[in-house]
Amino acid sequence: MSEVIPLEPSIIVIFGISGDLSKRYLLPALFHLIKVGLLDSQTVIVGVSRQSITNEQLLDGVDLHHDEATEPADTEAQQRLLSQLRMVQLDLDKLEDYQRLKQQLEDIEAEQGICMNRLIYLSIPPKIYGSIVELIGQAGINGSCSHGNAKSRLLIEKPFGYDLSSAQNLIDETGKVFHEDQLFRIDHYLAKETVQNILTFRFENPIFEALWNHEHIASIEIFAGEQIGIMGRKVFYEPLGALRDFIQSHLLQLLAIVTIDQPEQIDSLHIHQNKQALLDNLQPVDMTAETPNAVRGQYQDYRQEVENPESSTETFAGIKTYINNDRWQGVPISIWTGKGLAEKRTEIVVTFKSGDRPANRLIFRISPNEGIEIELLAKKPGYALDLQTAHMDFSYDESFNDYSHPNAYERVLVDAIRGDHTLFATSQEVLAAWRVVQPVIDKWHANADDLITYAMGTEGSDLAKPIEA
Amino acid sequence: MSEVIPLEPSIIVIFGISGDLSKRYLLPALFHLIKVGLLDSQTVIVGVSRQSITNEQLLDGVDLHHDEATEPADTEAQQRLLSQLRMVQLDLDKLEDYQRLKQQLEDIEAEQGICMNRLIYLSIPPKIYGSIVELIGQAGINGSCSHGNAKSRLLIEKPFGYDLSSAQNLIDETGKVFHEDQLFRIDHYLAKETVQNILTFRFENPIFEALWNHEHIASIEIFAGEQIGIMGRKVFYEPLGALRDFIQSHLLQLLAIVTIDQPEQIDSLHIHQNKQALLDNLQPVDMTAETPNAVRGQYQDYRQEVENPESSTETFAGIKTYINNDRWQGVPISIWTGKGLAEKRTEIVVTFKSGDRPANRLIFRISPNEGIEIELLAKKPGYALDLQTAHMDFSYDESFNDYSHPNAYERVLVDAIRGDHTLFATSQEVLAAWRVVQPVIDKWHANADDLITYAMGTEGSDLAKPIEA
Repeated sequence: MSEVIPLEPSIIVIFGISGDLSKRYLLPALFHLIKVGLLDSQTVIVGVSRQSITNEQLLDGVDLHHDEATEPADTEAQQRLLSQLRMVQLDLDKLEDYQRLKQQLEDIEAEQGICMNRLIYLSIPPKIYGSIVELIGQAGINGSCSHGNAKSRLLIEKPFGYDLSSAQNLIDETGKVFHEDQLFRIDHYLAKETVQNILTFRFENPIFEALWNHEHIASIEIFAGEQIGIMGRKVFYEPLGALRDFIQSHLLQLLAIVTIDQPEQIDSLHIHQNKQALLDNLQPVDMTAETPNAVRGQYQDYRQEVENPESSTETFAGIKTYINNDRWQGVPISIWTGKGLAEKRTEIVVTFKSGDRPANRLIFRISPNEGIEIELLAKKPGYALDLQTAHMDFSYDESFNDYSHPNAYERVLVDAIRGDHTLFATSQEVLAAWRVVQPVIDKWHANADDLITYAMGTEGSDLAKPIEA
Repeated sequence: MSEVIPLEPSIIVIFGISGDLSKRYLLPALFHLIKVGLLDSQTVIVGVSRQSITNEQLLDGVDLHHDEATEPADTEAQQRLLSQLRMVQLDLDKLEDYQRLKQQLEDIEAEQGICMNRLIYLSIPPKIYGSIVELIGQAGINGSCSHGNAKSRLLIEKPFGYDLSSAQNLIDETGKVFHEDQLFRIDHYLAKETVQNILTFRFENPIFEALWNHEHIASIEIFAGEQIGIMGRKVFYEPLGALRDFIQSHLLQLLAIVTIDQPEQIDSLHIHQNKQALLDNLQPVDMTAETPNAVRGQYQDYRQEVENPESSTETFAGIKTYINNDRWQGVPISIWTGKGLAEKRTEIVVTFKSGDRPANRLIFRISPNEGIEIELLAKKPGYALDLQTAHMDFSYDESFNDYSHPNAYERVLVDAIRGDHTLFATSQEVLAAWRVVQPVIDKWHANADDLITYAMGTEGSDLAKPIEA
């Protein structure tokens, strides 16, 4: 952990606090923030649940020490979490329940004697966001306390729509209740240390930035492969598929981070300006070309798993596109993701132009073993001038003692409490990303003739061959 | 070891075969070449010695398995070495002994029934090269056998002169007996795998070559530090000193390798053309400037060691200069070397321009642990955007299984037998290197006021501060 910077006391309202995501990630993140002293003791966590449950019932069976198996249990921090937590029963459809919630929030502020920022975290299925946000607005929870000028903020999870038009609708509806600067769209990929490592690597190391253009770079490949299948999450996954779940969101955001122009300053405003410019220049996937620019597949047991023998939901998706600006003109970008593949691996591979030689490559290894790698050619020892690919490697784990960086959910909470938008996608970025994949959605919707079935354990790079640079 | 490429049968004549250098390096190198099958069984090693000694006497006490402690003794190879070796007693001043040697070489060829290339290796003090070369010429050993068109080649060790004019004299005298293409000046630094690794790194990896100029590079530093003192070699060292011993020879050659333009082809002709152009553009050290461009020191016990209380021989020397061509205009080059320093370390450090940030550096680590390292800035894990210098590393040892590259003396012998000049300095290169350091020699010769005395174990970089870029 880095230095402890105190956060303003806040009210953190969590809708769906008894849900799976909350128990696995959010509560352990809050616990850890208390433990390291980041969460102010005046902060109140308001847990919203359909059922009436107590603090103790909620925490029963929750592994607060998530990822910290070796640390001793911290009973003091656990007591603090219990004392800062207020459970509220609420029927998600009933306006009067929201009005009661509003009163409770105001009571908390009166009790603490200060006007506090409100963080409203929707840890619930995205399909019902719309109606909840509307009721939050009607009850006036989107405002701050009647006296003072504290802020309220909304945290939501992907998917941010299912296509361009539904995303536009969602944004319009949400926009009636919350301003853009109150919105924090969670992308735990962006909140990972890695993304900031990429920004640092690119913009603090001039030797690499000098090479960062179509004169020196031949192609960029971004991929995220998983070995596991959908692990029973059929309600979530079946309407979504790999393209929406990963490419439209995480991977296009990663692409933007890797390819944006250097911001005047490394701050939220300038990074978002340059990301927007980049995403706007990203060419919607050309589905009219003769060579395929998109590929999809489904692992063998998927239909059985979702109990839908006709499912055409892809568990593997890949696209190829270009960035239409001076820096990246003509550099093919291929992006793919899938479940049920040979290995769990997320990488950004930048391949340099090399003439006839094997190419130099720079690899941002996101998982496993986060780091940066350069592939170069070295002379094999001996009398002959034989070459062999060699590796220069930098691993965060090996380079920083105790590389226990904040986990993504802690980071999300801290940044939202601070009101720092750097690592959150804006509405316009979300729409720009949908525009890139919309031609693929349309084509795939028309018929599923191109859907490939693949065995669990297939190499992702094999499936991605059609879109190879 | 790499693949075995058979070498032509040759006669290898070694003057001074019973000397220290021969016993420590040459004989083990020949033994190893026999062991791995590179030295043809028809090859004859003619050992020239002032005393009359037998093969067995010569090899008595020689550790042929130098550097190979773990390998079992190879008695068969040892027998082959004994059988391929012919000891010859010769008085270095007597022409008739050289004439007898010539007859012996012709007898060997008659015996083998072929005309063989001759390799004449002068493993003797450089001061007497001149007279020996003259007698070799008078006796006609510099030619090949009377029938056929085999070649004779001369291998000599540094120093190649003691200043510009003595080097010119030596070259002129040698030139009367041997043509330039018969000369092989041994620089075991150049024969190290490393130098070829640098050439490979630079010219086979376009990403680095793109950065290799004054637009991106702020400075270059080349240094070779040793912990040991002169270890009793006072006769060799006292007239020489660090500037002549290391900078004029090894380190300026290393500089040339690091800074030359890309040769049209990686072959001897084109590499030497570009090295010559580079060395001709290397600015003779400016000793008239106000800021010092040279620095020298002597470790504390040196005068006692050489039994000369007035010795002004430097055991530490550093120079700063520039390369006057388009690529390197304005980039300061500092070069230093010394004995009796804090650590044994030889590196080439390329520092990139960086604005206000800590600089990126690329380090060719020559010893210890040969490799290449990039220093870059990475984000420290945590919420703040704090930076820390991080390292990307490539180590030959770790990257190649069994990195038992040919040792420098084997390489020298193999290349000379093959007639490959790539790793040997030409006469013009030697003169160009003398021209660079001649102003320092002149200034230092005038008086020794600037000679610093330093304690054994001093940091070389501290002594080099005055010439820092």
